[in-house]
Amino acid sequence: MDPDGLQSYLDSFSNRDWQQSDDGAGPIRFAMVGLGWWTRDKAMPAVDNSTFCETTVVVSGSKEKAEDVAAGTETVEAGLTYEEFHDGAAVEAYDAVYVCTPNARHLELVESAAEHGKAVLCEKPMEATKERAERMVETCSDEDVTAMIAYRMHTEPAARRARELVREGVIGEPIHVHADMSQDILGWGPDQWRLDPDLAGYGTSVMDLGIYSINTTRFVLDRDPVAAQSMMHSDHEHFSDVPDEVAAFTVALEDEIYATCTASQHAHINSHLRIVGSDGVITIEPAFHTASGFEVTSAGTTIEVDTEQVDQMEEEFDYFADCLLDGREPHATPEHGLVDMRTIAAIHEASEAGETIEIELER
Amino acid sequence: MDPDGLQSYLDSFSNRDWQQSDDGAGPIRFAMVGLGWWTRDKAMPAVDNSTFCETTVVVSGSKEKAEDVAAGTETVEAGLTYEEFHDGAAVEAYDAVYVCTPNARHLELVESAAEHGKAVLCEKPMEATKERAERMVETCSDEDVTAMIAYRMHTEPAARRARELVREGVIGEPIHVHADMSQDILGWGPDQWRLDPDLAGYGTSVMDLGIYSINTTRFVLDRDPVAAQSMMHSDHEHFSDVPDEVAAFTVALEDEIYATCTASQHAHINSHLRIVGSDGVITIEPAFHTASGFEVTSAGTTIEVDTEQVDQMEEEFDYFADCLLDGREPHATPEHGLVDMRTIAAIHEASEAGETIEIELER
Repeated sequence: MDPDGLQSYLDSFSNRDWQQSDDGAGPIRFAMVGLGWWTRDKAMPAVDNSTFCETTVVVSGSKEKAEDVAAGTETVEAGLTYEEFHDGAAVEAYDAVYVCTPNARHLELVESAAEHGKAVLCEKPMEATKERAERMVETCSDEDVTAMIAYRMHTEPAARRARELVREGVIGEPIHVHADMSQDILGWGPDQWRLDPDLAGYGTSVMDLGIYSINTTRFVLDRDPVAAQSMMHSDHEHFSDVPDEVAAFTVALEDEIYATCTASQHAHINSHLRIVGSDGVITIEPAFHTASGFEVTSAGTTIEVDTEQVDQMEEEFDYFADCLLDGREPHATPEHGLVDMRTIAAIHEASEAGETIEIELER
Repeated sequence: MDPDGLQSYLDSFSNRDWQQSDDGAGPIRFAMVGLGWWTRDKAMPAVDNSTFCETTVVVSGSKEKAEDVAAGTETVEAGLTYEEFHDGAAVEAYDAVYVCTPNARHLELVESAAEHGKAVLCEKPMEATKERAERMVETCSDEDVTAMIAYRMHTEPAARRARELVREGVIGEPIHVHADMSQDILGWGPDQWRLDPDLAGYGTSVMDLGIYSINTTRFVLDRDPVAAQSMMHSDHEHFSDVPDEVAAFTVALEDEIYATCTASQHAHINSHLRIVGSDGVITIEPAFHTASGFEVTSAGTTIEVDTEQVDQMEEEFDYFADCLLDGREPHATPEHGLVDMRTIAAIHEASEAGETIEIELER
């Protein structure tokens, strides 16, 4: 593609190329399960601003917190405890469930949602272990509910546009990838579920941050992981229960493309995704905390592409709702999320064994 | 360091902070051994423009080529075959030897240079295998000659300045590193010594390109490798004799810093070096084919640092000559180069074994 062709191709991109429903469709009424800061400060405002979604129920471990949040949100009809949610309280008041709790609590909440016949939007990583993730896949399949794992990069314009360019062959055959997502969570204090393996799962940095590198690479390249190797360690006392204060891992994807990645919950905040192909390079930077564009080099020309800085959570909720309204399956099914869980398990196993670990692929 | 402090620190940097001799010192007279395109198009023009160096002898496998090059270069007194060089022809006409032949031919040439009592500047990688590199170390030590492995990034202002900032703690404690050097050598045709393991050594992409990522990381961080893991493969027919048309490798350095690297001789030309610390980030891009600056983020401020685009070979030759004139040891001794050879051997062994390989450290 020549530079003019590339530019006109880029200009033709629409942020919501996925949208099938009319703007007036909906709303999909959500029960927001888990009322931590992400739900309150990110997800609920996004839903409030969204085209297709509405928060009608909130669910928390604390009845008081649930009722406080309910009282503070006009659209909310009920503030429930987890127990009340499991028991089916207010099931007529919501169509779908957003699960945003510590990883190890996702499964039971998704099981109840599925038993109530509700659609499920579950935060990533989908659970604490691959075995529990497998059970979630089975549950959603058995109960025949539409479920999606909440990968917000799938509706991020920079990632979608980069994906289109890769598909169009703008950088030729993809050869290798570099990706990093790092941040410093010690500012949030030592008492965090992300540092507790009973709640977080295999560890903290790969589970919580590395998953962005893995999943976004899969998404942009349309290829899945087949093997992993890694090194990781924890030195700081607050990381003494998890193995990966910092981790470096390489994931081999289909077609022998290597993604070399790093992740740390105790480093300067930073992220990037860089794809080198036979004929060009695409770099998204920053990539995962927020994104507003990327750089593409192809046929000797480098173009800086500005993309709109969207509210990623708003896009994600509306995409999921659009899938429900349209009756189609989201891209990030539980089966899709399970591939990341198996990859993360392999990364941790590889570090312990000091060996390259193959990843079971079932598609 | 606050932004103003950082800027004034950057402004105080001198490209030739290493120079000890007066500009009028010298010259150091060089025998250029191996007259491929790099010597003729890069090294000899650099020497011609240099402050301290002069080409007085040229050495080639072909007497005709040696005499042709000699005839075309005013300062050259003799054009020799390798055999004549080994036999000590024209030894009074040069003070030092620059060895730029296929990797597997370095050792014997360095041995003769050392026997003639000449200083040695030997291209990287220093030899084809770590065992032959060890013999080179012994030879230079036994004959007590000053020898340097030709790492041109050691006198590249962008790398030196980044190194100073890391030493000053501008990005805090280094946590992890990303580095890539890739290019496409198939444009040079299939008949290349870099694709012949008898001449190149363990492989092509790690030996020839990955060494920049390894060595520059060592240089900028002042830490050496302790373990390596890797994945590599060759698909294209011209790479059928070497294992690493593309390679991804992670090197653990002292203090558990991970450098995740890629290298390919069959990808879009591309390079970068990115160091993430506890308090900031330094990115040199492009890094290894040529460099003209870097970006540093520290204490919430990002500064683009422009460095002079020097002739890296001119800087390298003058640095080596300055060491000789000053009677001091260069940074990149053969012992220093041997660490890279052991690292590269470990990277190849790791790929074959599918295991993390420890690297013997002797300093």
